[in-house]
Formats: sequence, structure tokens, C-alpha cells
Amino acid sequence: MKIIGIIAEYNPFHNGHLYQIEKVKEIYPESIIIVAMSGNFLQRGEPAIVDKWVRAKQALLNGVDVVVEIPIAGCVQPADRFAENGVRILNNMGCEELFFGAEHAEYDFMTYAQLVQNLDSTEFSKKNISYAEAFQEAVAAKIGHNIDSPNDVLGLAYAKANLKFGKKLKLNPISRNVAGYHDKFLSPDSNIASATAIRKVLFSKDHNLVDKYLPSYQDLKNEKYISWDDFWPFLRYKLISSDIDELANIYGMAEGIQYRMKKKALELKTEATFDEWLKAVKSKRFTYTRLTRLSVATLVGMKVNDVSLYNKFPYVHLLGFTKNGQKALNIMKKNSEIPLLAKISQQDKDDFYHVDYRAGKIYQSQNYKEQDLKRAPLIF
Amino acid sequence: MKIIGIIAEYNPFHNGHLYQIEKVKEIYPESIIIVAMSGNFLQRGEPAIVDKWVRAKQALLNGVDVVVEIPIAGCVQPADRFAENGVRILNNMGCEELFFGAEHAEYDFMTYAQLVQNLDSTEFSKKNISYAEAFQEAVAAKIGHNIDSPNDVLGLAYAKANLKFGKKLKLNPISRNVAGYHDKFLSPDSNIASATAIRKVLFSKDHNLVDKYLPSYQDLKNEKYISWDDFWPFLRYKLISSDIDELANIYGMAEGIQYRMKKKALELKTEATFDEWLKAVKSKRFTYTRLTRLSVATLVGMKVNDVSLYNKFPYVHLLGFTKNGQKALNIMKKNSEIPLLAKISQQDKDDFYHVDYRAGKIYQSQNYKEQDLKRAPLIF
Repeated sequence: MKIIGIIAEYNPFHNGHLYQIEKVKEIYPESIIIVAMSGNFLQRGEPAIVDKWVRAKQALLNGVDVVVEIPIAGCVQPADRFAENGVRILNNMGCEELFFGAEHAEYDFMTYAQLVQNLDSTEFSKKNISYAEAFQEAVAAKIGHNIDSPNDVLGLAYAKANLKFGKKLKLNPISRNVAGYHDKFLSPDSNIASATAIRKVLFSKDHNLVDKYLPSYQDLKNEKYISWDDFWPFLRYKLISSDIDELANIYGMAEGIQYRMKKKALELKTEATFDEWLKAVKSKRFTYTRLTRLSVATLVGMKVNDVSLYNKFPYVHLLGFTKNGQKALNIMKKNSEIPLLAKISQQDKDDFYHVDYRAGKIYQSQNYKEQDLKRAPLIF
Repeated sequence: MKIIGIIAEYNPFHNGHLYQIEKVKEIYPESIIIVAMSGNFLQRGEPAIVDKWVRAKQALLNGVDVVVEIPIAGCVQPADRFAENGVRILNNMGCEELFFGAEHAEYDFMTYAQLVQNLDSTEFSKKNISYAEAFQEAVAAKIGHNIDSPNDVLGLAYAKANLKFGKKLKLNPISRNVAGYHDKFLSPDSNIASATAIRKVLFSKDHNLVDKYLPSYQDLKNEKYISWDDFWPFLRYKLISSDIDELANIYGMAEGIQYRMKKKALELKTEATFDEWLKAVKSKRFTYTRLTRLSVATLVGMKVNDVSLYNKFPYVHLLGFTKNGQKALNIMKKNSEIPLLAKISQQDKDDFYHVDYRAGKIYQSQNYKEQDLKRAPLIF
């Protein structure tokens, strides 16, 4: 029995994800697949199109054995932090190998990780370009070529995290060249499309067109699809109604960006959309994803201290498992240093879980489904 | 020339208000009438049904000569504070007499004010009843009978404020027995109805029925009518997304009520209305109006410090005037100690005016009309 880890968002779960799982089963027919998945707000600072329970269910119906939620403080983070938090969870759950999609599955990610491990990140913030761009430049100088495709970047981040935690995982990049991560359109010749393209169609009147690209569109069909448009009035209200020094406490605020975020929220016309606001706030020093992550932190009121606490005292929330997955959970219970929450108690929600609980309540305001309290793990 | 002051909300301006103005003109045909009016959030903790500019316009079209806005920190306050802030403004604008509606216009409010001026309000909060009830009891003991009709209570508050500021105003209670303040229904036999009844009908499908009770329904007709229902999702979001210690800084929070406000916001079903939440939060120690005022303070993020600053450095915002009113403004400019803002500057909005500006922006999110910047006083 091999315990395989995957770090995923499943936004939504599509045939590309299914393909990855089938690949694992092909190589290890007896494996148990554990997925560390983002919750209702994703790594790049977007609300998930459907909630974590719907996404976990789709994964469990399609070959995944255990789905756990990466807490929001660990998830809505730059790729490196996200990867560290995911890898730390999978290590603790007893995973032996990590599978991930990559544009260049032939890359030797662990070797690259070793080459770049001593890059001094404090240097990056001095240049008049974004942190991400500066990091890209430095990595290319070390490795000899760019690593700039989104999944390759994540792959390198996983490798670095794995290195940091003592190389407990064997890395298995899977070629995902069928659909580009950011592809904007469905590809008629394939049944695999990017999550970006699928979401775009789900929000359009032609939403049924996605059927072909999803293993279980039936389950998704009756959901309300959630986007930043749903939360923008609340984010805007928060920016307007908060003092600057309250905003300054939000995790990720830097270089006085809170002034600009608030100013644009106040000044733009009432009808302005989230995207218009983002464009107005955008500057050379801040990438869009940094701003969308900041937007999530502001929306849910995630403070610097909340993230420090999570880093010191991590935990993980069990969303669901299969009978097969139960075996891995039994092993894990004996060895893990990270508490696995099967249910969120009244005490948890006021204690270490409070930002996740709050994020769930805010998500619930749009999809009308309780997210944490009284929800038991899905069992398949 | 007599300068007459009125403290009003005009929510909305109706024939009862017109009647009061006609009474003034009857007694003083040469008078200039100055109204200190609440802004977009009212004394009792409600959003105004239409914005301050629409209400000011209606007043100016119906005999009022100057309308100034009582800042939110002075307005969303218990009757005594509201009255003090209104009287202070009118004193500074050179008013000689104060007209107000009263259920018992025959009461000698100034004498009553003298009788109750030394009541020790710290005693009230010890009993297991609301402050308002305890105050009623104590007043009745001093005066010999209850003062419990809403406008009489306000009248007594005006008298106390007038006493405090050296009795600069002569008080003129006007009998308003045609419509009870809290009357829930329009009265078919009269063309005067309570603002409560009028609002109720404006929110119904029979809104045209109010025509008879308003001097200028045509101006109101195309407005979007605003209520707590519009702001409730934002208040709820604020309660959910704020830490308890952030809520504790809100003006008016006491006895840990923030825990209860937040708890109910979290626990009630997603569909719960503002009224359902209020009922759930209500306790013996808090009247509904105290809770609705707290709700406004929470919605706009008005802190203890914001109110202290306003008390120390009051200001008043000029919403509009007539040619006749211009004369009073000329006199006032020479004598007033309270700055009169004819326009809100970029600097004002970030400085002392910031809570009003914020309240305006929040109101604007629902009625789509800029409330402060770039708005000049109405001139009729």
C-alpha cells in the first residue's frame, strides 16, 4: 500500500484532475490518494466557484481517498508558502510520494530546488519590479533557464518545501500539456480543458457546454457559482468602513497599499466592479494575485497574528474519505503531529479555527450552506 | 426679523412638518426658519428613507430657509445628546426660538427641565431595566406625572439642552395631536399621517396612497427608498468579519453586547432579516433603539474617539438655503463658534469629517448618489 499525496484546488474538479488520479492508479494500483485541498478561498486569492464540500465530494467520487482542507491562513498565500503548508500536511498524513501536474514533467525539480535554496529573498523586494518577477529572474540565473509556467513554478515550490522538510516525499511530476493552466477557451478536440476556461463557461449562459470536460457535471449543475463579484460589495464596504490603521493589521499589507485600496474603493463610481477596482489599485510593485490575496485577507479580516499562529500551531480539517482512505487515517492518527479535525466544535470556532470559521460564514452568506459547524466528513 | 430653529429628521417631509412651518409663519410672518436636520442615518438608528439632499430640498421647497446637517456623531444618539447637539447648532446659528411638535404642547418644558436637571444618571444603569425606563421613572417622580410620549420626551430633552446652554432659545411647543408619532396606519380623514405610517406605505406596493399626506410626493416618487434591509447584509458581514476587540471600540458598545451581536449574526440562518437579528439580540438591558443606534455605529465604524472629537470640535454641514436664509447665514458667519461647511473638501473628508464621509459612501452604495464631495448647498 502506497500513500500518495496531491495538493489541489479542484476549482472545479475536471477531467484533467481525473487524468492525474488515473495516472497514479496506473502506476500504483493499490495506492491510497490523499488530497490537501484549498477551502473556500483559493491560493491565488479567489473565492472557490463551489464550496469545499462540493469539491471534496467530486474528488472522492473520482478516485481520491481522503480530502483534507488546507486552512485559509496556509492556503491564501504565495506559491512557496502554499506549497510548504500543503507539503507539511501531506508529510504528516504519511504520504510517500507527491504527484503534481507540470508543463515540463521532465524537469528535475528536486535538483532545481537545491540550486535555488539559498536565494536571498530580501534582495528581491529592493528592485522596482514585483517580488514574483524578481524571483523568476534569480531562479533563471541559477538554473540556466526560466521556470515560468504556472504549474512548473508550483512544482519548484513543492520541491523546495520538500527539501526544507527533509525530502520525505518522492516527487512525481505528471505532464499536463493537454490544457494550459490559463487557457481561456474550451478545446473542442479534447475532453480536457483548463479550470479557467471551465469557470468562464460555467458563468456564461452556455454553461452546459462544460459537461464534456467534467466527470460529474450533474453534481455541479444545481450549485450557485460564486465569484469575486459576489463578495466585492462586502470588500468595498469593508475598505470604506475601516480605519486605515485597522487595514494596516491585515495580513499581507505592505508599502502602504491599504491607502490605495481604500482610496479607490471610495473614489470609483458606485457601479464599479471588482476588476475595475483591481485595475485601479494595480501598480508595478504589486501583482494581481498579490492584490487578490490581500483582498481575501481583508474580506475575512485575516490578521498577521492569525497567520503566525497557524504557522506555529498548524491543524487540518478532514472533509471526507473513502473506506480505503480510512486505512490511511488510522495510520496517520498514530503518527501525525498536526491535529486532524473531523468536526469543528463550538470551542474550535472561537479558538484557533476562528478565521476559517469566519471565512466559511462569509462564503455561506452567498451560497446559503453552513460550512463548518455541524458538518461531518463525507464518507464514500 | 426673527430667526426660528427647528430640529428635525424629515423622514420623509410630510404635511405634519409643513403644518409646523405654517404655524411659525403664522406667528412670525417675517421669520427665517433654520432646520438642523439629521443626515443619512437618523437619531433612532435607522437609515433615512431618502438621502439628506432630497429631504433638504423638500424642506426648502416648503418654507424652510436654511437646512444644516447634524453630523452623524451628534445625531445617532440618545434623545438627550441629539437634543444637545441640535440646540448647540441652532444657538450658534443665531436662532432665537425653537419650535417643536409635542403631544402635550401645554407642558411647561423649561420648568420641567429645571426640576430634572440634577437627576443622577449613573443611578439608572444599576437597575435591571433599560436606561430609558429608569429615566422615565425618575422624571415622573420629580415632575409628578409621566413624560412618555415620544415628542414630549424630545421636548424635555430640548429644554434640558437649552437650560444647559444658558436658555438662549425660547421654546414653542406646537400641538401635533393629529398624528401619533408611532401611528402605523394612514388616517383617511386627515391629510396628516405619521412618518412611520408614511414609510410603511412607501415600502408597500400601494405607495401612491401617500400622495395626500406629502406636500411634494412628486420629488420623492423616483427615489429608491432605503431601509435597514439594504444595509443588513453589510452589518452582518461586519459583525462576522470583525474581531471582538474591534467591535468593542465601536461607540456605544457596553456590557459585552458585542458578543451577543456577533454571536447572533453568526448563528442565525443565512436568510435571517435585520428584524429577526434585532429580536434575537434584544435583552432587558437594551432597548431596540439603543440596538439600532449601535447597529449604525457598527455599520459605519464610528468609534468612541470619533464622538469625543466631534463633541470637542463640532462642525455643521450646510445642505441648502433660500435667498431669505442667506441673510441668516451672513449674520451667523460673524458670530458662530461652530464652523459651517458649505463644501466638503478632500482634506475635510480625511480629517474631522471622515465618519460622515464614510456614512455617506455607505449610503451611496445603496442609492448610487454621491453624498458629500462635489456637492454644493442647494439654493432656492
